[in-house]
Amino acid sequence: MGAFTFAAIGYIKSPYAEKFAVPRQPGLVPSARAQLVLDAPYRGEALRGIEAFSHLWLSFVFHQHLDRDWQPLVRPPRLGGNAKTGVFASRSTFRPNPLGLSVVKLLDVDAKTGVLTLGGVDLVDGTPIIDIKPYIPYADALPDATAGYAPQAPTALAVTWSDSALDTLKQLQQEHHQQFISEVLAQDPRPAYKKQQLDSRQYGVTLAGLNIRFKVESDRVLIETITSFTNPSA
Amino acid sequence: MGAFTFAAIGYIKSPYAEKFAVPRQPGLVPSARAQLVLDAPYRGEALRGIEAFSHLWLSFVFHQHLDRDWQPLVRPPRLGGNAKTGVFASRSTFRPNPLGLSVVKLLDVDAKTGVLTLGGVDLVDGTPIIDIKPYIPYADALPDATAGYAPQAPTALAVTWSDSALDTLKQLQQEHHQQFISEVLAQDPRPAYKKQQLDSRQYGVTLAGLNIRFKVESDRVLIETITSFTNPSA
Repeated sequence: MGAFTFAAIGYIKSPYAEKFAVPRQPGLVPSARAQLVLDAPYRGEALRGIEAFSHLWLSFVFHQHLDRDWQPLVRPPRLGGNAKTGVFASRSTFRPNPLGLSVVKLLDVDAKTGVLTLGGVDLVDGTPIIDIKPYIPYADALPDATAGYAPQAPTALAVTWSDSALDTLKQLQQEHHQQFISEVLAQDPRPAYKKQQLDSRQYGVTLAGLNIRFKVESDRVLIETITSFTNPSA
Repeated sequence: MGAFTFAAIGYIKSPYAEKFAVPRQPGLVPSARAQLVLDAPYRGEALRGIEAFSHLWLSFVFHQHLDRDWQPLVRPPRLGGNAKTGVFASRSTFRPNPLGLSVVKLLDVDAKTGVLTLGGVDLVDGTPIIDIKPYIPYADALPDATAGYAPQAPTALAVTWSDSALDTLKQLQQEHHQQFISEVLAQDPRPAYKKQQLDSRQYGVTLAGLNIRFKVESDRVLIETITSFTNPSA
């Protein structure tokens, strides 16, 4: 009594190879497509009727953090990375139980192969899923709820591409990822404390199998270079 | 890899002694008060700032069903109890992983003793909680989501009290539970298939430590008798 073991029902295939640059909440990057590939027992009939729901809740495991301990106080990025708040007043990935919760858009269902195509995803490639539930607006949508330090979505920055980055994207025939990459970087993935100061550093991130180098100038993101990166899930 | 063990962080003290009559979703019975009593490591600082959020997500375990197997198809009450849908297109309590998700109103916080007072709860007494997350409306509230067979809250029935039931409630000095009991029974807790037919049976349910006997006449619930029931969590 008091301990419960759950088995993964499937895994996420996502363009986010690493935690850096994953948006803070689902839905902030609408172009983020991912697939949930379910294990055999969870295909077919277990999915009957799911296509009638526009959105799903995914319960998942922060699998990259299983060996890291939690602390009672965390520093949410929304508080600038300095102020502390209780772990249960946050959605920090370092929690007593490394359990995540994400609402995603359901774009397509292939019940036979157990593949759900999802939009607005904020999950790293390889994330284990332990439950899927339909989103029920009459119970789940509380637009008047008050939410302490995170009352609104974070402000998105403008994103500019250098000519050479855009040329490379075309040469690699990856233009279909341009919108996704722009939406991710508009969220400013830098550590919160960097946003308080002048920061001329160039950052790198891997998205959709592309290695992207960018910097942030006041309220604008400049994408400087793109190179191809071999990533099986791209 | 593939199996994950979570420990309870605390337990629910609720007026619902049994699963029968627990509303189908949280929020349908606003007067349902409950307490979440956290274990010692999760009190104090871990709760700092949580009072700034009006609503919380609770991840919990369907602990009464741990030894019952799941089936790929279920019969949601909303479909009259006859039509089948996939388990992942439902919030059935019998799931591959017995994991529940509930949004509740946060009414009061006693960080020192680790007691959260909650409203609109749909959890049975003794439910183990494995995570608490703040409700973030900009990410979680999707009023335009479409939800298959459950587009709106179920219709509530009118509730009438017999004179003797009301007298007993007063004698027991339990009038403060009248609204709660009415809201629960307005949801018509009978099995879905009973709602399709003429049903003159008297039903019994234990709520807030009171044993309540009622019947349903077309679209009206009649509370016939109330007796006291010794229940430590009432």
